[in-house]
Amino acid sequence: MYPFTADIGNPPPAVLTIAGSDSGGGAGIQADLKTFTALECYGTSVITALTAQNTTGVQALHHVPPSFVEQQLRSVLDDIDIAAIKTGMLANSDVVRAVARTLTSLARPLPPLVVDPVCVSTSGHTLLDSEALGTLIEELFPLSTLLTPNTAEARMILQLIKQKRKSHAGEVPPITSIVDALRAARELCALGPCAVLLKGGHMSPGGVRLADVKAAVAAEDVHAVDYDGLVLPDANMEILFYAAQDPAMHDVPLVVDVLCERGVQPEGEDEGEGKKWIFTLFVRPYLDSSSTHGTGCTLSAALTCALARGEPLVEAVKLATMYTHHGIATAFPVGNGNGNSHGPLNHMHQLLPRVLNKRVPTPRDPFPFVRMLIHSNMDMWKQYVQHEFVRQLGKGTLSRERFLHFIKQDYHYLEYYARANGLIAAKSSEYADFAAAAQTVLAIVQERKMHVSFCSQWDINIAELERTPESPACTAYGAYIMDVGLQGDAASLLIALAACLLGYGEVGLWLSREAKRPQSWVKIEGNPYRKWIESYFGGDYQDAVVAGIERLEALVIRNPPNAKTLELWKAIWDRCTRLEKGFWDMAMDLS
Amino acid sequence: MYPFTADIGNPPPAVLTIAGSDSGGGAGIQADLKTFTALECYGTSVITALTAQNTTGVQALHHVPPSFVEQQLRSVLDDIDIAAIKTGMLANSDVVRAVARTLTSLARPLPPLVVDPVCVSTSGHTLLDSEALGTLIEELFPLSTLLTPNTAEARMILQLIKQKRKSHAGEVPPITSIVDALRAARELCALGPCAVLLKGGHMSPGGVRLADVKAAVAAEDVHAVDYDGLVLPDANMEILFYAAQDPAMHDVPLVVDVLCERGVQPEGEDEGEGKKWIFTLFVRPYLDSSSTHGTGCTLSAALTCALARGEPLVEAVKLATMYTHHGIATAFPVGNGNGNSHGPLNHMHQLLPRVLNKRVPTPRDPFPFVRMLIHSNMDMWKQYVQHEFVRQLGKGTLSRERFLHFIKQDYHYLEYYARANGLIAAKSSEYADFAAAAQTVLAIVQERKMHVSFCSQWDINIAELERTPESPACTAYGAYIMDVGLQGDAASLLIALAACLLGYGEVGLWLSREAKRPQSWVKIEGNPYRKWIESYFGGDYQDAVVAGIERLEALVIRNPPNAKTLELWKAIWDRCTRLEKGFWDMAMDLS
Repeated sequence: MYPFTADIGNPPPAVLTIAGSDSGGGAGIQADLKTFTALECYGTSVITALTAQNTTGVQALHHVPPSFVEQQLRSVLDDIDIAAIKTGMLANSDVVRAVARTLTSLARPLPPLVVDPVCVSTSGHTLLDSEALGTLIEELFPLSTLLTPNTAEARMILQLIKQKRKSHAGEVPPITSIVDALRAARELCALGPCAVLLKGGHMSPGGVRLADVKAAVAAEDVHAVDYDGLVLPDANMEILFYAAQDPAMHDVPLVVDVLCERGVQPEGEDEGEGKKWIFTLFVRPYLDSSSTHGTGCTLSAALTCALARGEPLVEAVKLATMYTHHGIATAFPVGNGNGNSHGPLNHMHQLLPRVLNKRVPTPRDPFPFVRMLIHSNMDMWKQYVQHEFVRQLGKGTLSRERFLHFIKQDYHYLEYYARANGLIAAKSSEYADFAAAAQTVLAIVQERKMHVSFCSQWDINIAELERTPESPACTAYGAYIMDVGLQGDAASLLIALAACLLGYGEVGLWLSREAKRPQSWVKIEGNPYRKWIESYFGGDYQDAVVAGIERLEALVIRNPPNAKTLELWKAIWDRCTRLEKGFWDMAMDLS
Repeated sequence: MYPFTADIGNPPPAVLTIAGSDSGGGAGIQADLKTFTALECYGTSVITALTAQNTTGVQALHHVPPSFVEQQLRSVLDDIDIAAIKTGMLANSDVVRAVARTLTSLARPLPPLVVDPVCVSTSGHTLLDSEALGTLIEELFPLSTLLTPNTAEARMILQLIKQKRKSHAGEVPPITSIVDALRAARELCALGPCAVLLKGGHMSPGGVRLADVKAAVAAEDVHAVDYDGLVLPDANMEILFYAAQDPAMHDVPLVVDVLCERGVQPEGEDEGEGKKWIFTLFVRPYLDSSSTHGTGCTLSAALTCALARGEPLVEAVKLATMYTHHGIATAFPVGNGNGNSHGPLNHMHQLLPRVLNKRVPTPRDPFPFVRMLIHSNMDMWKQYVQHEFVRQLGKGTLSRERFLHFIKQDYHYLEYYARANGLIAAKSSEYADFAAAAQTVLAIVQERKMHVSFCSQWDINIAELERTPESPACTAYGAYIMDVGLQGDAASLLIALAACLLGYGEVGLWLSREAKRPQSWVKIEGNPYRKWIESYFGGDYQDAVVAGIERLEALVIRNPPNAKTLELWKAIWDRCTRLEKGFWDMAMDLS
């Protein structure tokens, strides 16, 4: 006999869904099991009801006896070490009670429990009556780590509570704004769950706007805002807006999910030193898609996986909302459909080779790789492109001495940059890449001429440029680039060369944008460095930046990096932005 | 509004499972949906029965009315374009009939149908009585593209048929050999399915041996044998046996699945010009594992995915059996278990970064990457290591002129090889890699000395070696290696250098093994090239080969290649084995 184990690293956590079955595969335990698998968790399932269902709706329902639901639950929990549980459609009061009874009778502590209060299907089918909803509120809410209603479900729950508490209850108004959502989330959280994620997909037809988010944050006590998958204004990503050439990108419609957590001081009505409720907003581009069947199931399943892995709640919500967002974004057609049909999400997008770092290019986020690079060291990127050197240059107050020191060193740097582009050609295999490298080299030859002509304005000739000793900052940067080129493949060299290309492009666009503001600090007219500034926000240079961005995005699509390669690329990008900042530090210090 | 589509390439095919639910997640529709997802198909499901089940067995069963099974089936098939279907546990005769009736009433042609005749669970629970089995044979077998019984199910089916045909039927003997399986598969195929895959996992306790496979192939009319995941004797993989240092690897226990397809001439009992039955054997290492719960479900689900993608049947079986094999090989513990528990497979192994080209290192296949490289151009590999030059060298009949021509060129080649190893160091980032490269360089310095001392035996001094002009074959190979080193990263250069390192190791071991045979064609005693031969099967050189194999395997684990990189590596390996062969062609031609 050959006893056998292959080392596969840490075994995946086991998770459980308690929900209905959707024969069409888009929602229910099917969506859950697909999500569990794609997120590499071991999935188990307790089926509460069967539906005969497809993308057009629910055709028939078969109930499962509550005792058999309980039996399934015991079979799973008696044998398998479940790290997190989610509930979806629970069919009726007796099933809800059976689930609550079994979960509270466990010998060991209950693992994290995500309760998705499924009441109505995407197709409009009622899946839980108000009696069962009442039982759910009473028996499962207090056990839950996280409740995940959409705005309609939140309203139904709050309405039911209002009816119970007063005999003549008025209507609970619909939740149509972020401020409404913050209040509703707090009221729901007060009903027992440790936290509530109120999903904003249906909050406002066509989504909300960035101004709405900023207004809500200004008005309410919001702890943090997560903007993932967004090319944000004021984040020095002008080059991406420029490259996208899509005016709509400046005011993208958004979806906002609201997370409300119980704070450290849950007693008392008033806030003391701690906060009673902690709010986090999760903001993503709004997707106009009918492939939304099973969205809620998928999100709560993804949350369950993240909690099973021990992710903190905010991180779990971030991962799960992005997984679900990309599930919609990459959906493929399923079902013959009619005008009213709702197709499922793509649960397998993480398996697509095109998905880099869990992100796909979309019209609202067309350059996810470059955006990710910039995000990966945002602070250093801003220190680089908004450097004091750049600010003084923009004002026209930069001393001639500093500018000349910079330009002389940049003259040396260009030689490295030209050689490195030659090396890219030598390391490439496609004629398009040879051509791109050659065009860049020619652009550098041109840039050098510009440097020479600049310098001649200030009575510095080529001989003086040539004999100026190279500064350590210049050598560090230039030699680092050549070393990346020696050590790695064409891709890493392309990344190394991008910090300079993109950064100067951003400086050009940023100064140009700032100059257009009323009473701007940037002075173009009469600025002694006007020619220099204009050469970087000019069309030729910006065309090269766009081509560079597109080359980088094409690179990750043609040749998707593994996690290790991605870390290497981020490290190279980080080094080069630091070296760029160092270059301008040198100019300011005259060292 | 922002209408939205992200280009994700071809949409995945939709597939359907008609089977029972396993709450524990290891078998039934759960195993099917997990497999569908891992293999990137869109999964739908019709549930025929619910089980309360875990790794220790089935605790309770809930039947679903046949009419509701039919309703689910219609909901799926009316709306979704299903590319392939599988059936698993069908519970009872009425359900079988409902399924058969619905499938035959489709307006469009039935897609490929895989019927897994599930009768008994891995834990021993009876899942289909003999009446229902009879209905299955009668109504579903004729519709099926492929039937996938294990040996116990095959015997039950044949027994039932025997009982039906004769009043006083004897016992059908158990299927305990490959020859038994070939006969049983043919008898099953005659019952109506287009093809039968008879699974051999339980054929013989502890598996069968390679000699059994060869005997069966010699005795019966087997069309083809697929040996995947095996390091085979007589395939010039001596270096892998040597590196594994595991005597058991020479006679690994095996599992054999038998595929029987209807041939081109189905009429008449006797074979005419065509064959009535076409047999293919699928041979894999036997795994001694209790993580086999859901194996049959997983295999038939994987087959369904492959058929949905339009794979030919033999290719589909190959893909599905390897997927299932690796599911067992990479299983992780699920369930608290007792001595009798059966854990599930790992359905997610394709998502593991460690899995290269769908393969994981296992004790029976410890070097899957190097094995895959050798397999990828097996023919050229054999032309290289069993070259006429090597054969004459082994016999001692090689002309001195040819040997000297070779050794002079190899002297030049070693200079490239040393430089290329220096370049590997320059392209590495870890001290272990610097050290490995430096040790190789030192070994080359030593090898050069050996060349010099050899040549001095034949009155050729260093000066003559140095002034010998480089042949085009030598320049082609040496410059190609340097070019790979210039163009790519350390990994591609390591691959480029491997063909020489591993090939000479294989030549040494092959000649050494052949020399040990009685009346061998290889002559060691008195062979004028004895010293040369012994230097390559000696411990020092073989240690370097083992280190090289381990470095290559470590490379793909540390830095898993994407599909494009893998193709590049195979192309480099192919070029280098060709250039190696070319080097010996040159020696034989004296060109």
